[in-house]
Amino acid sequence: MTQLEFARQGMVTEAMKKCAASEGVPEETIRQGLAEGTMVITQNVKHRNIAPLAIGKGLRAKVNANVGTSVDHNNIEEELEKVRAAIAAGADTIMDLSTGPGIDETRKAVMKASTVPVGTVPIYQAAVEMPRKKKRPMVEMTADDLFEVIERHGEDGVDFITVHCGVTRSSVEKIKKEGRLLGVVSRGGAILAEWMDYNRKENPLFENYSRLLEIAKAYDMTLSLGDGLRPGCLADATDRGQVQELILLGELTERARAKGVQVMIEGPGHVPLDQIEANVLLEKRICHGAPFYVLGPLVTDIAPGYDHITGAIGGAIAARAGADFLCYVTPSEHLRLPTVEDVKEGVIASRIAGHAADIARGLKGAMKQDSDMARARRALDWQEQIRLSIDPQRARKLRESSLPHDSDVCTMCGELCAVKKSSKVI
Amino acid sequence: MTQLEFARQGMVTEAMKKCAASEGVPEETIRQGLAEGTMVITQNVKHRNIAPLAIGKGLRAKVNANVGTSVDHNNIEEELEKVRAAIAAGADTIMDLSTGPGIDETRKAVMKASTVPVGTVPIYQAAVEMPRKKKRPMVEMTADDLFEVIERHGEDGVDFITVHCGVTRSSVEKIKKEGRLLGVVSRGGAILAEWMDYNRKENPLFENYSRLLEIAKAYDMTLSLGDGLRPGCLADATDRGQVQELILLGELTERARAKGVQVMIEGPGHVPLDQIEANVLLEKRICHGAPFYVLGPLVTDIAPGYDHITGAIGGAIAARAGADFLCYVTPSEHLRLPTVEDVKEGVIASRIAGHAADIARGLKGAMKQDSDMARARRALDWQEQIRLSIDPQRARKLRESSLPHDSDVCTMCGELCAVKKSSKVI
Repeated sequence: MTQLEFARQGMVTEAMKKCAASEGVPEETIRQGLAEGTMVITQNVKHRNIAPLAIGKGLRAKVNANVGTSVDHNNIEEELEKVRAAIAAGADTIMDLSTGPGIDETRKAVMKASTVPVGTVPIYQAAVEMPRKKKRPMVEMTADDLFEVIERHGEDGVDFITVHCGVTRSSVEKIKKEGRLLGVVSRGGAILAEWMDYNRKENPLFENYSRLLEIAKAYDMTLSLGDGLRPGCLADATDRGQVQELILLGELTERARAKGVQVMIEGPGHVPLDQIEANVLLEKRICHGAPFYVLGPLVTDIAPGYDHITGAIGGAIAARAGADFLCYVTPSEHLRLPTVEDVKEGVIASRIAGHAADIARGLKGAMKQDSDMARARRALDWQEQIRLSIDPQRARKLRESSLPHDSDVCTMCGELCAVKKSSKVI
Repeated sequence: MTQLEFARQGMVTEAMKKCAASEGVPEETIRQGLAEGTMVITQNVKHRNIAPLAIGKGLRAKVNANVGTSVDHNNIEEELEKVRAAIAAGADTIMDLSTGPGIDETRKAVMKASTVPVGTVPIYQAAVEMPRKKKRPMVEMTADDLFEVIERHGEDGVDFITVHCGVTRSSVEKIKKEGRLLGVVSRGGAILAEWMDYNRKENPLFENYSRLLEIAKAYDMTLSLGDGLRPGCLADATDRGQVQELILLGELTERARAKGVQVMIEGPGHVPLDQIEANVLLEKRICHGAPFYVLGPLVTDIAPGYDHITGAIGGAIAARAGADFLCYVTPSEHLRLPTVEDVKEGVIASRIAGHAADIARGLKGAMKQDSDMARARRALDWQEQIRLSIDPQRARKLRESSLPHDSDVCTMCGELCAVKKSSKVI
């Protein structure tokens, strides 16, 4: 049975108990959230070396870090270093998006190295291994080719998979009809759009959704219904194609729930700041409260090199509006495969966004660390300030690079330290 | 006559014309905004080597970069390098907050190096030069000591000055009575609080406000009414002391306008995300539409080393709600005097925030560069993508550090490039 099925039967599992403890909420809150589908616990029944993680309404906003090889940069050891860096920086989940040669080996290594749930996008492997192993073009991939990979990921213990089930002939048609500046920017979405165009057939993930649900159910693998038609620039945000896909995902959410399969929904992408709240509301309404997993959103298109910042702005606003799960964006987005340092920067930026939103949503206990920091600042206790920092290593490094004459202040203000002065009179 | 007085008389000055041209708005829009006090043009009549800059309602959000020496780190050449780096990164104004020995020389050098308006906080100089030059404790500073420095800054051509006129005995009393985690975190605010406590007298900037207005008027030096009692942590945000000070600043805004003096209002600080919009609304209402100049706001207290990101999140939300002018925050905030690289990072982060907000507010033309970027991405035109980036140097560096096998994609996706694939079918 899946966590969803246990919850529906009124049973509180070990996983639910652990999630309740780590979130600081009653066990019944987790059970009820799972039963209603507003929460998921991302843990494949075959995946044992991780702590279970709940994602959804009323819980701390979670952060995912993508790692994975590419054809141009295929170094497993480096990806494992990214896994460790991401987890050390506080990532709640890892997605292995490898597309370089040796995908199975990389995935197994990532799963072994990760202490947090792992997600994948099976269609990447199915697609790139067509020419690589089957010596045929990508577009000749069959439904069996794809489902064989999905089954393998389930068997390996993958906790959640992105499946772009809503990229259908009708939703792609909406995009063509309305027109877009930037077409499809999701790799999975583009693979499927090209495949449907070439084969004149419907998306195999949509056509064979029942088959997908069977596999997902067997492993309690959470489905992350991908937004393959997400906007790739501000001008394309919230267009008919995007919303059409979301409507399909809403219907597929119901079908998954009916079969006892856990579901979350992926969201954009590039979205103007003023459209973010509406996007969250749309997802929550149309998908009947399913957890929302957003990529950014990026609030401008012009900042390659700084997209961890554009993503943190959008992520904070989205999470405050109800998004539950933030996919990080690194400074290398739009430019290159990220480095280990980029991975760390991306995770911290997303954690800042999620934390700021948790406070704004009034999540119980969310502001404690902030107020502890305020007390440490008032006390001019630098060791404590560093300890309470989101990245103590970075905070220590910056402070130690520029030590003040008086050890209780910093080199910005020195003797003019406002905290030191005002402590005398207030 | 000041720009405000010209505007009231229905006259469109050269400065107004230039601002209208650079903002892409009718000259009458600028004149009317100045006349109503919802805009300022920050240019001292003695300051000639800059382009005039308008700040306020309906205009592009502006970004300020703070530079300046401290006692612990007093290197004029390095500060000038920061001025150049900030302007190259797109800062609209520079504030020289120097407190290290040689403040006059540093200010003159900064003003010579800057091609954008320059602001200062005269009380810093008045206070630190008490022991340094007058061999007496800081708290023995007289109103004349302070006004002599203000006059000197005006004479030097400083375009706007921060004056903490609202840090009065009554507003400080409100803070004491309600209680705060972190007291006063503004240097000017703390100097004045200590001074008032020691001398048992009212704030000289408040008591002698008419004298301040005379000096400001003589040079058309814009007053930036400082929020000396701004919150220094989330827990202190929007408390009675902060709002009491704002009410006083509202009254002082009216007095300044009546004398033909241009005014803007400074705002917090550390503010939970959900309180930012209310803070902007409060300022706009209580200060009758005066331009709002915010420091951040920082949406969490726990991210020293990343406060350019916490500030960008808050700044974007504030600017979208109507804040007009964003003071940057650097990664070194709370830890040390910033480096040249920090200054650049801080300016870019604030520019991203302002730009995202300009788009969200529907500012005419704001999204053009984003859509041009989308077109360049669709065309896989990497030179154009780099040219359109907010920091072309950074974008080029990241891309060139990791060149793909096929020159039209990047090392993230390689052959799986969604844009390349989807161009075939959409």
